[in-house]
Amino acid sequence: MKAGDIDTLCVQLGDRSYDIVIGAGLIESAASKIAPVLARPRCIIITDENVAPHYLAPLKASLEGAGIKVETITLPAGEQTKSFAQFQKLCETILEMRIERSTTLIALGGGVIGDLVGYTAASILRGIPFIQVPTTLLSQVDSSVGGKTGINTKHGKNLVGAFYQPKLVLADTQTLNTLDRRQLLAGYAEVVKYGLIDSPDFFEWLEVNAQALIDGDMDKRRHAVLTSCAAKARVVAEDERESGKRALLNLGHTFGHALEAETGYGGTLLHGEAVSIGTAMAFDLSRRLELCSGQDSARTAAHFDAIGLASDFKALNTDGWTTDKLMDHMSRDKKVEDGKLTFILARGIGQAYVTRDIDTADVRALLNDWLKNSS
Amino acid sequence: MKAGDIDTLCVQLGDRSYDIVIGAGLIESAASKIAPVLARPRCIIITDENVAPHYLAPLKASLEGAGIKVETITLPAGEQTKSFAQFQKLCETILEMRIERSTTLIALGGGVIGDLVGYTAASILRGIPFIQVPTTLLSQVDSSVGGKTGINTKHGKNLVGAFYQPKLVLADTQTLNTLDRRQLLAGYAEVVKYGLIDSPDFFEWLEVNAQALIDGDMDKRRHAVLTSCAAKARVVAEDERESGKRALLNLGHTFGHALEAETGYGGTLLHGEAVSIGTAMAFDLSRRLELCSGQDSARTAAHFDAIGLASDFKALNTDGWTTDKLMDHMSRDKKVEDGKLTFILARGIGQAYVTRDIDTADVRALLNDWLKNSS
Repeated sequence: MKAGDIDTLCVQLGDRSYDIVIGAGLIESAASKIAPVLARPRCIIITDENVAPHYLAPLKASLEGAGIKVETITLPAGEQTKSFAQFQKLCETILEMRIERSTTLIALGGGVIGDLVGYTAASILRGIPFIQVPTTLLSQVDSSVGGKTGINTKHGKNLVGAFYQPKLVLADTQTLNTLDRRQLLAGYAEVVKYGLIDSPDFFEWLEVNAQALIDGDMDKRRHAVLTSCAAKARVVAEDERESGKRALLNLGHTFGHALEAETGYGGTLLHGEAVSIGTAMAFDLSRRLELCSGQDSARTAAHFDAIGLASDFKALNTDGWTTDKLMDHMSRDKKVEDGKLTFILARGIGQAYVTRDIDTADVRALLNDWLKNSS
Repeated sequence: MKAGDIDTLCVQLGDRSYDIVIGAGLIESAASKIAPVLARPRCIIITDENVAPHYLAPLKASLEGAGIKVETITLPAGEQTKSFAQFQKLCETILEMRIERSTTLIALGGGVIGDLVGYTAASILRGIPFIQVPTTLLSQVDSSVGGKTGINTKHGKNLVGAFYQPKLVLADTQTLNTLDRRQLLAGYAEVVKYGLIDSPDFFEWLEVNAQALIDGDMDKRRHAVLTSCAAKARVVAEDERESGKRALLNLGHTFGHALEAETGYGGTLLHGEAVSIGTAMAFDLSRRLELCSGQDSARTAAHFDAIGLASDFKALNTDGWTTDKLMDHMSRDKKVEDGKLTFILARGIGQAYVTRDIDTADVRALLNDWLKNSS
């Protein structure tokens, strides 16, 4: 691998600071980055059945080649794995291995594995070290920064978990080659989000380069992952526990979570797909409230459309959906305070802001119209 | 309540600092202490079936009298409640109530309720505020300081949890009046521990005053709770996440946990009863290694005996116990590092220290002898 092919970003969080290393082929040489951050040379790699055939053997081989003791656990793939039942099972499997507080967990996989393993690491023996090796675009640009871990409950996603930082993140951009296109696009929705929040230049760059990035240009992928992680790291460093500015990262998520809840998290609608629609909704609400121009709202939707991401309800089966149901899902959001929903709206591209001053009637009117136009 | 009947101790942990308020009758006037620390006037009290009949109504009445919205959850009493199953159920029950991040959980009960509710508060929405109202001597002097929360697994006690600090602790010494004598004595074992660690004067005071304290003298109880909490707070403030000095608090616990594991946590042996025997074992090991005098070792055991706490295996049914089994339980302790057990030994009363340099053969010899003398 030639020099310059690897970027390293330090997420600054005092004594919880850690590096995100981004580049192609990092898994094969993982030990060189991982060994220096281990308290003791013992790791447990936790992955899923989709990822294991591709990347478990090379990661294990690299670590064992450096004299590190490695055990592995392979879980079922899919969102259902982020459950209380799997959390308990994983904790007990790890405890059965007689770990010590210095044993490090390695999460090899997408957001499901990262979130579950992170929460498990936060909880076992009240906290043991963990490392993330995210293998999807979504997890590379989203869950690898910020320390949010957790599992789903019957009342919603990620409602039980911990803020817990990894010791290291290795984002190997080659893993995106084995990712199916739908997953790649869904992850790309979060990349766009960073441009829309506060980086109009990055959004412009994406308008020009998105297609090449999605089609496999490795340098553009690395640039997009680095820029996204850096954008998120900036926000998280200022607000680790989500009391203020960090809420900006939820652009598209208040609406998006309601769509995911309504579709049942079953793969009908991927998280990133919900975010692209939710982001278009947030811009539409901003336009209706005369906060941003119709041009910026249209430009946002046009970019999602151009890349093959939904920006409306047309591709969804909305039979039986109602404004009341969607409002109900939104009211269960973690960001509700004093009964008020938090919305991330925008004064334009790259000019997002957080507000709790939105009239419920305006939100209901928007949902009514979107539902009416969905069929 | 006359002035001077209440003591307040601040546990200094930076932005996680909190007060422990100690006195008789605090529950009846709880709102005056609780209202000022609430982010919003909404609480959920979680208690158990033993405690609810005595203290739930007055606590609820006090809070409601101050305009605070109160909901309540009553769980089964007993160690089995600290399980994954109850954790999941409690999380889902609380989420069903549609809480916000500003909703405060109040743990009203002993260590089981405190540990379970603390871990639940740490996990729900990745952390919501909680307040402890400990109603046993053990929880007043132990789990109310230090932020250790957690549940049990089939591999041992407290192996899954979080370090998570309460916003406030109210230790009402009147609640000890409804505690049965066996529970009171078990809690007293932890009080003795603080004297043995680094406060020989407090140990001497206990030798004189323990009987009165146990029999109901409220001033002596308050003094003992305050001194114990202050001792623990001193250690915790220096070492919140248990990397060094905090291990001193585990005096008697490495052996004690093995005894609890062997008896199955079923009430056969209470935690504090295991600690008194474990402490006697730690002093016996210290004597055998010629670290402390036979006189100090005997004086420790004599105090436990005088007060009615066990200092040997005689009252236990040790049929089927073996040295191997006890060693195996100890090797699963959270404090194991690099395969080495951590022991808290003593150079005398009030002179405890942490060591990993103990020869396994010496520990096995001690266990052999104690088992031989048990029948």
